Amino acid sequence: MKGKFVTFEGCEGVGKSTQVEMLKEYLTARGGNFLFLREPGGNAVSEKIRELILTKDYGEICGRCEALLYCAARAQLIDTVIRPALEQGKLVVCDRFTDSTFAYQGVARGLGAEYIARLNELTCGEVTPDVTVFLDMSPEEAFARKGGADASDRLESAGIEFHRKVYEGYREAARLYPDRIVSVDARPSADKVFAAVLAALERAGVKL
Amino acid sequence: MKGKFVTFEGCEGVGKSTQVEMLKEYLTARGGNFLFLREPGGNAVSEKIRELILTKDYGEICGRCEALLYCAARAQLIDTVIRPALEQGKLVVCDRFTDSTFAYQGVARGLGAEYIARLNELTCGEVTPDVTVFLDMSPEEAFARKGGADASDRLESAGIEFHRKVYEGYREAARLYPDRIVSVDARPSADKVFAAVLAALERAGVKL
Repeated sequence: MKGKFVTFEGCEGVGKSTQVEMLKEYLTARGGNFLFLREPGGNAVSEKIRELILTKDYGEICGRCEALLYCAARAQLIDTVIRPALEQGKLVVCDRFTDSTFAYQGVARGLGAEYIARLNELTCGEVTPDVTVFLDMSPEEAFARKGGADASDRLESAGIEFHRKVYEGYREAARLYPDRIVSVDARPSADKVFAAVLAALERAGVKL
Repeated sequence: MKGKFVTFEGCEGVGKSTQVEMLKEYLTARGGNFLFLREPGGNAVSEKIRELILTKDYGEICGRCEALLYCAARAQLIDTVIRPALEQGKLVVCDRFTDSTFAYQGVARGLGAEYIARLNELTCGEVTPDVTVFLDMSPEEAFARKGGADASDRLESAGIEFHRKVYEGYREAARLYPDRIVSVDARPSADKVFAAVLAALERAGVKL
């Protein structure tokens, strides 16, 4: 693959979208050859799969079915969008990818870390991220920082215990894949975090 | 699991539906505790997934996405229908299951036998068939036996080479899982094949 593949991961409320947006603006100003994506979605088939996961019209979806559906959507995104872009030499940046499935379905929903690791391998084959930026902040800190009723609602809807497990899932992924996942402290100001993100990407050999 | 799980597999046109129907009538006459299913489908979520696989509205679905979607539908069917029925001590009979994915997506569509074997394992966990009846007849023989324009259309729509590969896929599965898969010669009359099916199920310890 001529291009580089970068993913961003982290718990809700840690500033992931902000950092991805800052990187997009930074690269746009410099006129790079890049593509920004957000999971799940990014093509017609994957959007339909996403709808199916999110709707409750057909009853509760079991854990394995949910994980397999996320992976089906990802396989299609890889085949139709990510792989062609990488082959064209683009820098592909994706907001959430396999580590989200690892942390959410594998650890927080209890399918098991090894289960998801094997499923991710079958889904992605050789199209794995070159670098993953894990924006490291605990759900308690993200919750306290955001404050307000909205943040409270969203975090409390699944319960702080759930988000705590997601966080533990990300930390386990970071321990398992130290060559790929770079942990960046997400607690400082957005500008400081962004400087750390840029430094981490450059250290990892991503040309910006 | 208190119940037994039996699946039927084979190429198109070999008389699979006929044999499954004969078994259903046989068991109905004897008043057994059983459940007949057909894949893909069998519950609302899996039906929606099936629709997504079959529609061409959203463009071509890549091989991995297709296999993952079939497995997502199967995981949901297992969780909501098959596992509860087996726990209640029912005899569950399913027309097509994991070996179809092995033969069609793994071998005929080229994802690889090992790939599908690993995916099937992640999909089903411990809910695997106790016995699988493989109705063994080559696509050429099935084609010749059926004759007529309709059979010709259906078989030729994917090409005889494709069905030949599916057949090879089934034979590979039978070689890989000799303890589970019983090959039954599907060329004699329906009654003779059914007698062989009953004998095979009894030999495999399925109480009818």
